[in-house]
Amino acid sequence: MNPLSLNQRTTKSWTVAQAVDGCVRHGLESVGLWREEVAEQGLAASAKLVRTAGLRVSSLCRGGFLTAAASLDASLEDNRLAIDEAAELGAACLVLVVGGLPGVVPGRPLEGVVSRDLAGARERVAEALAELAPYAGERNVRLALEPLHPIYCPDRAVVSTLGQALDLAMMYPSEQVGVVVDTFHVWWDPQVFEQIARAGERIASYQVCDYLHPLPADVLLGRGMMGDGVIDFPPITRAVLAAGYTGDIEVEIFNADIWAADPDEVVASMKRRYAEVVV
Amino acid sequence: MNPLSLNQRTTKSWTVAQAVDGCVRHGLESVGLWREEVAEQGLAASAKLVRTAGLRVSSLCRGGFLTAAASLDASLEDNRLAIDEAAELGAACLVLVVGGLPGVVPGRPLEGVVSRDLAGARERVAEALAELAPYAGERNVRLALEPLHPIYCPDRAVVSTLGQALDLAMMYPSEQVGVVVDTFHVWWDPQVFEQIARAGERIASYQVCDYLHPLPADVLLGRGMMGDGVIDFPPITRAVLAAGYTGDIEVEIFNADIWAADPDEVVASMKRRYAEVVV
Repeated sequence: MNPLSLNQRTTKSWTVAQAVDGCVRHGLESVGLWREEVAEQGLAASAKLVRTAGLRVSSLCRGGFLTAAASLDASLEDNRLAIDEAAELGAACLVLVVGGLPGVVPGRPLEGVVSRDLAGARERVAEALAELAPYAGERNVRLALEPLHPIYCPDRAVVSTLGQALDLAMMYPSEQVGVVVDTFHVWWDPQVFEQIARAGERIASYQVCDYLHPLPADVLLGRGMMGDGVIDFPPITRAVLAAGYTGDIEVEIFNADIWAADPDEVVASMKRRYAEVVV
Repeated sequence: MNPLSLNQRTTKSWTVAQAVDGCVRHGLESVGLWREEVAEQGLAASAKLVRTAGLRVSSLCRGGFLTAAASLDASLEDNRLAIDEAAELGAACLVLVVGGLPGVVPGRPLEGVVSRDLAGARERVAEALAELAPYAGERNVRLALEPLHPIYCPDRAVVSTLGQALDLAMMYPSEQVGVVVDTFHVWWDPQVFEQIARAGERIASYQVCDYLHPLPADVLLGRGMMGDGVIDFPPITRAVLAAGYTGDIEVEIFNADIWAADPDEVVASMKRRYAEVVV
């Protein structure tokens, strides 16, 4: 099995059909899909495309955004939809980006009512998970809690470390709630190797990309092709495999230059760099 | 005692003489000094200014940058000088920013030989501390290890969490090596309250400023006046005091707008916001 998977946001201009075709042409066996692109292609059509091509769906991105009490019902409903979609696609997991401080808009200046209650936001995540985990379990969908780099704590994820994600996940059966290990988000963590070992079979997804230095003005786009940043991948990859992870290794890059490049060249470059610096 | 202290970088255009004068005029009892400004004023002259004014020196910023094996001897020599300066100034501590990955230049694109050996860089810090702690102890200077927000891990500090800083500090007597709790760097940490309690008397400095959202393009300048960002200060302040900290509370802000403002207005604003949102 070739575990290298293309997360379709790495080739942002590609539709689901184009990403599936690209994976097949480049000899990949799996693809990570995004809900927005799946909706554009159509859910049933997307499911048929990946099945016909014989691809694994390494993840569906993404559910989450569970921290605002005011919109929690709507958010839970959307997450149940996302779980249904993941089930239909046969995705190995549904990635959850849990959300930031209520009222803080990603990338936008603070305005209006902004909550600074970080502990409260974290409690909302735990409560929402209690709603979603059984629903996912009934549909054989595995939720994958993704700790995000602390730079995203205000606006995208109040779950900031692998240890914290595991504390939440471990309240549920492993097949219901796992965690994402994403090199960009965890490389700096002094506890990363200890927590990867602790995670064991809880690792639902291993995502790789590099951490650029300096970060661009829009920090969301600070993800780079492996080898272009400061991360030493092999120790992390070895730790993830030693923990028992046997799933796909997904390359997920948000980067303006890579998005402007020819997607076929991006996939070729990704395969080369994966072999050179990741494993 | 009024614990509010002006870190002189908050009023960047002020010399040591001006900062000392400003503190006195605004009714402050302590000041945090920087080595560069002390050198410009003259070490003996700076020491005389603070003593004559009856101010405490809440910290001297900063030593550190200990991660590059190639320049370790020069760095250790410079840190010994910094310890001597802290002793002459009667500073409560010498803040150590330990340095990033060898070859990564703060704020500059990667070029030349860059190390990705994060574990190795962290070992260099531990080794350097073994050299510096006894030297500091002999001069009654307390080193204050500062964990920096993980965003600065590549270029400024491979010590990224309070827990990690404590693991290093606890190898030495408390009067030789303590830690800095800086709200900007630790507010997101799921373990922050547990680690502040664990720190106890190890807290050598408590620094406050806010975490702006979104961060500016130069992330070093993402520090804001308290109340302008996303940090909920009172729980952190209470935890630091409950841990037994009785020292000064230093306001250290790197921010282009604040640096462009009238320093007297900045100090007045700092006093107001301190009373409103920090304690």
